[in-house]
Amino acid sequence: MRLRPALFACALLLAPLSLSAQEPPKYRSAQEILDASPASDWRMPDPANTLYMELAGGRVIIELAPSFAPEHVANIRTLAREGFWDGLGIYRSQDNFVVQFGDADAEDAAKAKPLGSAKAKLPAEFSRDGAGLAFTRLADADGWAPEVGFVEGFPAARDPKTGQTWLAHCYGALGAGRGNEADSSNGSELYVVTGQSPRQLDRNITLVGRVVKGMELLSAIPRGPEPMGFYQDAAQRTPITAIRLASDVPEAERTPLQLLRTDSKTFADATEARRNRRDGWYLRPAGHIDLCNVPLPARAP
Amino acid sequence: MRLRPALFACALLLAPLSLSAQEPPKYRSAQEILDASPASDWRMPDPANTLYMELAGGRVIIELAPSFAPEHVANIRTLAREGFWDGLGIYRSQDNFVVQFGDADAEDAAKAKPLGSAKAKLPAEFSRDGAGLAFTRLADADGWAPEVGFVEGFPAARDPKTGQTWLAHCYGALGAGRGNEADSSNGSELYVVTGQSPRQLDRNITLVGRVVKGMELLSAIPRGPEPMGFYQDAAQRTPITAIRLASDVPEAERTPLQLLRTDSKTFADATEARRNRRDGWYLRPAGHIDLCNVPLPARAP
Repeated sequence: MRLRPALFACALLLAPLSLSAQEPPKYRSAQEILDASPASDWRMPDPANTLYMELAGGRVIIELAPSFAPEHVANIRTLAREGFWDGLGIYRSQDNFVVQFGDADAEDAAKAKPLGSAKAKLPAEFSRDGAGLAFTRLADADGWAPEVGFVEGFPAARDPKTGQTWLAHCYGALGAGRGNEADSSNGSELYVVTGQSPRQLDRNITLVGRVVKGMELLSAIPRGPEPMGFYQDAAQRTPITAIRLASDVPEAERTPLQLLRTDSKTFADATEARRNRRDGWYLRPAGHIDLCNVPLPARAP
Repeated sequence: MRLRPALFACALLLAPLSLSAQEPPKYRSAQEILDASPASDWRMPDPANTLYMELAGGRVIIELAPSFAPEHVANIRTLAREGFWDGLGIYRSQDNFVVQFGDADAEDAAKAKPLGSAKAKLPAEFSRDGAGLAFTRLADADGWAPEVGFVEGFPAARDPKTGQTWLAHCYGALGAGRGNEADSSNGSELYVVTGQSPRQLDRNITLVGRVVKGMELLSAIPRGPEPMGFYQDAAQRTPITAIRLASDVPEAERTPLQLLRTDSKTFADATEARRNRRDGWYLRPAGHIDLCNVPLPARAP
């Protein structure tokens, strides 16, 4: 007796009503589609655009989004180059929301770690004109935005009336913490979404990238006991050994990684296989998928 | 300089365009609304309908949903009364999905822990006729169901064409693992949603309740290294000291807890305050909230 939600266990075809005439195409699970995908549907993230966050538990890999937040990404590159985060920590873990890291003393001028040659002030980069961006639209309805889909591997949304496009707060999204002023983030204090997608943050704060590997190192961090998940006791914070650009790490020490192109047929087919699952376990295909429920596959080459 | 997404920090009113004529009512944050709520908008969960899951890290409190899964809840009560889970463990933690607990050897007839006087076989309880259920509808659009809202404190959905109503897979939902057959769950193997709401499971598996306190004890469990988050090494599993009905625990050892009534004005007002946040930090109120983004407040009396 198998008492587990064995979601991906087998790939039985639902019995067709008739075997005559047009037999429906055999259902393929998302995994089967990925396994059969052509190499050209995968890409290597640009090392100059990839952060390695080194924790005692392992490496978290982040892809930055310079197309959406060029000023923040440039500043983050400078901060990484100059070792800003090395020896700092994850100072917040709020259940069903975010982890946050950087300098816990950033608000105390006497103790704050200097930003080096990084800029202290940047413009808000909440959204941008969509001109020149290839937007792979998801047909499914969304309550938060007129249209949703994917741009360069990132979950995104857009408003056809204004032409504005923006990144969406899905699981794993990396954003730049700010105060009450729109332009009060500089990329030194960063958060990663670890809970139910807080899409109400979209266009209210600058997203700068996405965790593409190692989310479980952030999501399983014990929640902070203070309001909003902060740790007053510095000993409870998770130390950051280093954050480096992959391009600054010797090639032999880099993590080989391929990401599925979100404008590929494989991605469209795998998403459809999840929108209407017919793998023998699902008795009622949903006929729908939400933007933040669409997996963004990564694999070792 | 405050570089944190201080979502609940202050309650400034957006500057009104004019102070003449009808001044808009002062914005109150969800927390302010809760703080001012009448006692009658809160309820104590029925101890006979409440599970205490005791872990080394503390107590997880679960409210069962007999209105939706009467057979499963009856069986779970029997299993708790007879100590079925005591000494068993959490044997699965899959990132951005679920933790699962019960008898890791349930599928091995030679090793499986006997179910005692609980039933080995139950009917599927995926949905029910909505007659007699008070459904507090959420006006917001949902991609997974024709209508969504709350029933007796639980996120739920319904189809006005068929009259069917069902529980929704939001963060904290408790379900009964099953195999490929619809009626292959008996409530001994249970899972809790710890990731982005997997609404595709709605009406495909029996939900039996919801974690109302202590989610952080489940969500922060290190993810299992095997496929689907299982731990092959039993030493990595999180031991369950005991699962008891609150009504079987001496009153002095119970955790006093109040839950906000989801059919109350306070709940409606707090939800609206989150749908359109105007607390000084948010520059663009979302004008929308998803079913699984609506907090279900709990407090000590």
